[in-house]
Amino acid sequence: MRDVVEIGLGKTAQRGYHLDDIAIVPSRRTRDVDDVSTAWQLDAYQFQIPCVAHPSDATMSPATAVTLGQLGGLGVLNVEGLWTRYEDPVKVLDELASLDDDAPTTRRLQEVYAEPIRPELIAERVRQMREGGITVAVRVSPQHTLALAPVILDAGVDILVIQGTLVSAEHVSTNDEPLNLKEFIADLDLPVIAGGCTDYKTALHLMRTGAAGVIVGIGGDEWSTTDTVLGIRVPMATAIADAAAARRDYLDETGGRYVHLIADGDISTSGDIAKALGCGADAVMLGEPLSLSAEAPAQGAWWHSAASHPKLPRGGFGTAGDDPLGSMERVLYGPADEPHGQLNLFGGLKRAMAKCGYRDLKEFQRVGLVLDR
Amino acid sequence: MRDVVEIGLGKTAQRGYHLDDIAIVPSRRTRDVDDVSTAWQLDAYQFQIPCVAHPSDATMSPATAVTLGQLGGLGVLNVEGLWTRYEDPVKVLDELASLDDDAPTTRRLQEVYAEPIRPELIAERVRQMREGGITVAVRVSPQHTLALAPVILDAGVDILVIQGTLVSAEHVSTNDEPLNLKEFIADLDLPVIAGGCTDYKTALHLMRTGAAGVIVGIGGDEWSTTDTVLGIRVPMATAIADAAAARRDYLDETGGRYVHLIADGDISTSGDIAKALGCGADAVMLGEPLSLSAEAPAQGAWWHSAASHPKLPRGGFGTAGDDPLGSMERVLYGPADEPHGQLNLFGGLKRAMAKCGYRDLKEFQRVGLVLDR
Amino acid sequence: MRDVVEIGLGKTAQRGYHLDDIAIVPSRRTRDVDDVSTAWQLDAYQFQIPCVAHPSDATMSPATAVTLGQLGGLGVLNVEGLWTRYEDPVKVLDELASLDDDAPTTRRLQEVYAEPIRPELIAERVRQMREGGITVAVRVSPQHTLALAPVILDAGVDILVIQGTLVSAEHVSTNDEPLNLKEFIADLDLPVIAGGCTDYKTALHLMRTGAAGVIVGIGGDEWSTTDTVLGIRVPMATAIADAAAARRDYLDETGGRYVHLIADGDISTSGDIAKALGCGADAVMLGEPLSLSAEAPAQGAWWHSAASHPKLPRGGFGTAGDDPLGSMERVLYGPADEPHGQLNLFGGLKRAMAKCGYRDLKEFQRVGLVLDR
Amino acid sequence: MRDVVEIGLGKTAQRGYHLDDIAIVPSRRTRDVDDVSTAWQLDAYQFQIPCVAHPSDATMSPATAVTLGQLGGLGVLNVEGLWTRYEDPVKVLDELASLDDDAPTTRRLQEVYAEPIRPELIAERVRQMREGGITVAVRVSPQHTLALAPVILDAGVDILVIQGTLVSAEHVSTNDEPLNLKEFIADLDLPVIAGGCTDYKTALHLMRTGAAGVIVGIGGDEWSTTDTVLGIRVPMATAIADAAAARRDYLDETGGRYVHLIADGDISTSGDIAKALGCGADAVMLGEPLSLSAEAPAQGAWWHSAASHPKLPRGGFGTAGDDPLGSMERVLYGPADEPHGQLNLFGGLKRAMAKCGYRDLKEFQRVGLVLDR
Repeated sequence: MRDVVEIGLGKTAQRGYHLDDIAIVPSRRTRDVDDVSTAWQLDAYQFQIPCVAHPSDATMSPATAVTLGQLGGLGVLNVEGLWTRYEDPVKVLDELASLDDDAPTTRRLQEVYAEPIRPELIAERVRQMREGGITVAVRVSPQHTLALAPVILDAGVDILVIQGTLVSAEHVSTNDEPLNLKEFIADLDLPVIAGGCTDYKTALHLMRTGAAGVIVGIGGDEWSTTDTVLGIRVPMATAIADAAAARRDYLDETGGRYVHLIADGDISTSGDIAKALGCGADAVMLGEPLSLSAEAPAQGAWWHSAASHPKLPRGGFGTAGDDPLGSMERVLYGPADEPHGQLNLFGGLKRAMAKCGYRDLKEFQRVGLVLDR
Repeated sequence: MRDVVEIGLGKTAQRGYHLDDIAIVPSRRTRDVDDVSTAWQLDAYQFQIPCVAHPSDATMSPATAVTLGQLGGLGVLNVEGLWTRYEDPVKVLDELASLDDDAPTTRRLQEVYAEPIRPELIAERVRQMREGGITVAVRVSPQHTLALAPVILDAGVDILVIQGTLVSAEHVSTNDEPLNLKEFIADLDLPVIAGGCTDYKTALHLMRTGAAGVIVGIGGDEWSTTDTVLGIRVPMATAIADAAAARRDYLDETGGRYVHLIADGDISTSGDIAKALGCGADAVMLGEPLSLSAEAPAQGAWWHSAASHPKLPRGGFGTAGDDPLGSMERVLYGPADEPHGQLNLFGGLKRAMAKCGYRDLKEFQRVGLVLDR
Repeated sequence: MRDVVEIGLGKTAQRGYHLDDIAIVPSRRTRDVDDVSTAWQLDAYQFQIPCVAHPSDATMSPATAVTLGQLGGLGVLNVEGLWTRYEDPVKVLDELASLDDDAPTTRRLQEVYAEPIRPELIAERVRQMREGGITVAVRVSPQHTLALAPVILDAGVDILVIQGTLVSAEHVSTNDEPLNLKEFIADLDLPVIAGGCTDYKTALHLMRTGAAGVIVGIGGDEWSTTDTVLGIRVPMATAIADAAAARRDYLDETGGRYVHLIADGDISTSGDIAKALGCGADAVMLGEPLSLSAEAPAQGAWWHSAASHPKLPRGGFGTAGDDPLGSMERVLYGPADEPHGQLNLFGGLKRAMAKCGYRDLKEFQRVGLVLDR
Repeated sequence: MRDVVEIGLGKTAQRGYHLDDIAIVPSRRTRDVDDVSTAWQLDAYQFQIPCVAHPSDATMSPATAVTLGQLGGLGVLNVEGLWTRYEDPVKVLDELASLDDDAPTTRRLQEVYAEPIRPELIAERVRQMREGGITVAVRVSPQHTLALAPVILDAGVDILVIQGTLVSAEHVSTNDEPLNLKEFIADLDLPVIAGGCTDYKTALHLMRTGAAGVIVGIGGDEWSTTDTVLGIRVPMATAIADAAAARRDYLDETGGRYVHLIADGDISTSGDIAKALGCGADAVMLGEPLSLSAEAPAQGAWWHSAASHPKLPRGGFGTAGDDPLGSMERVLYGPADEPHGQLNLFGGLKRAMAKCGYRDLKEFQRVGLVLDR
């Protein structure tokens, strides 16, 4: 049964489980791997794999967004990142790629992100992506959504991702007029993905804003320091399962509106992808795993957007290491020549589904789970 | 539900939870960070941040107590430390700051603390602090309270901190007349902070002595060895929550007397501060985190007072390492240029409160918690 | 009681326990070690020790299968390994044995296993084993069972091991006619061992196919990466105990057909063997432990068959290290001159049984267990 | 409540807790350390501290047994160790003390212990101890008790310790006439300490043999490998508490016969001693902690008797390291100049008792415990 623990007299905490705590359990049936489908559809957009890029400049440029889109996933460019602050960010990316562990990496991130956003570059970047013939998605923070929305929409994106470390449907401010997500989305013609959130209630409220997709999690990975800085840590298995319950309840409440859950956090291997989907996610958001591909703009270096916060950075800078593991195609589809689940991410997912006897992603959400004692 | 576990036939243990075991949970609302207040008031004294210094010579000199006071926290000088044993302790501090890991650091601590306390220096140190225009607080051990109180009170302190590793309201002795805290406090005109304690009952008894504040915990950190030496280890999340229950019950029993809880142990980052307050503390006691500031008298070296015990030392000596992280102002208020939660401690707290939608510290004590499985 | 945990709203996971989580508990009786028997019998074949070799080329050649058989265990040769792909695999094995950690070991494995299987070599290898006068067993994968069975059976094996990472009694395929295990086994004259499986239901279904033995587990060890690649991890203590329940239920359902359980995973010391049998296994499958013997064909190097998968390798390559610990006889029966449970594997088992007062393996399955909190 | 966990269908395990899992909890009272007594009495013999030496040749020679006895503890010499195999074992001890980590230490132990036991040396060693004016205790294994008892008893020991890794009241053998502990003890005039045992039932049966003391635990420490070799691991907190329940029940059943529990395992610091006594032990058996004293015969090297087993060694050899921490007196009574609980072992215990408000050992068995989540 669900554990609500009294950690002290009258103060309770809910037990939460990380993806590492669980594993998927094969059932009595197995299936040919060729009979398994990983197809995913969000609104009118179809994808070969349930893969959304985490909008970090380390992995997402207009070019890599196009590459990922052509390979069957959804690239997402951050319109508050380097590509909209610099006419030519390649020089900046090259410098960041060359930083080593002894360098004041956080300070350098803070400096390069101090450059102001130039709206005209947003249009330019969207144009570059659109030319690649892909589904175009960009990320904007909730704070800047109202200001940047006009130029983003004018530029002609297909999907808008409104993502902050934590997004709620009810932001309180005494200074500014805060973003009213519900009204904002109601006025839009295009599907919105919003998040991250970490619990049932916030997930449900975000669904009620009209979002087509809700991001679960805060992009936690080994470079993230949200725990030490804010005291916030998200047990992803529990967060996903709770949000999936919100999805079911919202489906019932609306008589059929299905909102997709995109898991963003603690996912670095094909095994993690399988577990996240097995907990109930519809798709996964990949950050650092894509930094291992040859196309990664920062050549293997890795950072979250929160890592460059001017006053309270909340993520480390992973310096570029060895040679890339392989092309983005190999990262996604193999063949792998290493056994650690970092190459052939979706081939691994497919095989996991086959070993458990499932045919498609929706079925696979019912897979059995085991919890390490 | 609360776990009381039978560890063997007829022998039970209560499960206790550490701050590391838990995390705070954002709720459905978020708030502007500028709308959040971290103000704290103890008796008539107001503070900008709920920050009390752990009275270690490594971080607290008359000068740094003044600096901390001017920055909005409460400095506490140990009147049984180096500043009341030496006319000029700077030479001793400099020597301790220069010790390296191979040195017999514990033995050296024992030697420098073997020097007797000189009461006239107590008056001098209090005078130095008073000149800084701050709320003046000093720490005395329960064993020496009766002997040193006259000179301390004469010197004119604002708040008296009576702190031992463990303080109970009922100390039994067949040799000396032990300190009767209740009578002692009743005779005083100034607020007393007393502790540490680790459980509901001792906390309640300490509240009944008339203390304005109760210290929860024994200053445990990675340099503390109370566990290996005494077999005593304090799960701070549980200890704080239990003491908060005592605060509620005492509030009811007295029809309104609110005793503040000051958490002292396992707090080294802004995330830890958020968790301690989220468990129910009113303020935190900071030890080693302040040793990272440029002003620290021991220049980065760190030790507890128990580390110099002549016969049973109970804490290691942390040798001074790299350059300080920044000024005390930056340690408290940022900006941070590292992502590990050691700079901008109270900016981090403020942002954690904002992410969870809370306005002030009292509200934030109700924040939701998650427990790692 | 059994823990089924709600990891999120409406999503449950079953707690599973690893062999490392448990220990065996001595009871009120002890026994002379010389009065203890480790004899095991499968179908008509008798063994001195409950030891089946994991069919890896790193440890099993025709020669070592003979050695193990002569020492009282059951050697198993992989008919899809190097010995049926190469006329003289010794050169390949020598090369693999000389690889160091910097080499692209996975890629080299993929290359050497890309060589096609030559059916005529199967007959030759079986002949070599038969000449050793042992019980002859070979392993074939479920995918290749139908194709290779004729040549295997013609060659005259005693026991057939049908082993894949995961084998179910119901494999679904839209392309090929999948192996129907039940029909296949019904047509055979010789006992079949099938697996691995990981849960009660699959174990029961495999028993109903007519298998004489069922493999529990997927050969997990510290080189295995099934968890990171597929998200599948098998808590062996739970998997064995669940399969033992299936064995009991199948015994009842058939009025007396006893199917043997062979535990394959997380077994590297004599203590692990004792625990696996104490959980209910009838025998253990040994992989890497045998690679420490002087006779090991790869001279100490170690890999699973899944480690050479052309597109999704799922295991690391353990490079050959120091000198072997001793002959296979010493590995199995001692004397040991190291205290880590890697030599005298079955002498250790015998002594564990004696310390707990048991006489034979079947009795020992009832031994008490303790779980680390 | 007590956790009995179903680890698999129909197979249960009892949760057990290690000393590391728990800590003692101060209560509302504190006490002067000078008012605390650590006195212990076994049968007619009085001791200043509840300290029994683990009979390893690394720490116990006739001389160190005398030293420990004079310091208020109980030394125990192993009559099956080096001192009864060699006329002058000092040369052997010196050689062992000089072995380094690269040496085949286990093999060397096996060799030096291959020398036969010389009964005349038993008498000589007992005489040497008796001359020291101490309570004389020797250890014999259950296997050799019948053979060696006559010479031991003739030599005039005060207390006989019959200790094997595991001792039961019911040893079954088809070859030899096994030791009947009950009859053997009934015929003796002197008190017997017997063990180790690990559970309630065996403890109770050992009490019923008439033993004055029962050893709980198997001397497990970081050098012990009983877990990897035999699969046996003893959660000491649970084992002690269970045996304490047996002591209570036996006290009731006999109308007042109190059997002392001596905890042997996982005790390396003063904090561990406090925890073991807090779980219900009457005394602790100290092995490796005494090897840190200047008087230790092997000059800091450490091994269990099982480490020299000729065929199945079950313990590592700890090579002598740095200089000794101090004299045996300082190890037991301080003063300590290191903070890790290895010096002033019983001063630490005394202070722990004082911090929790207890006066004597029997009271202290009721101390509260906390369990890390």
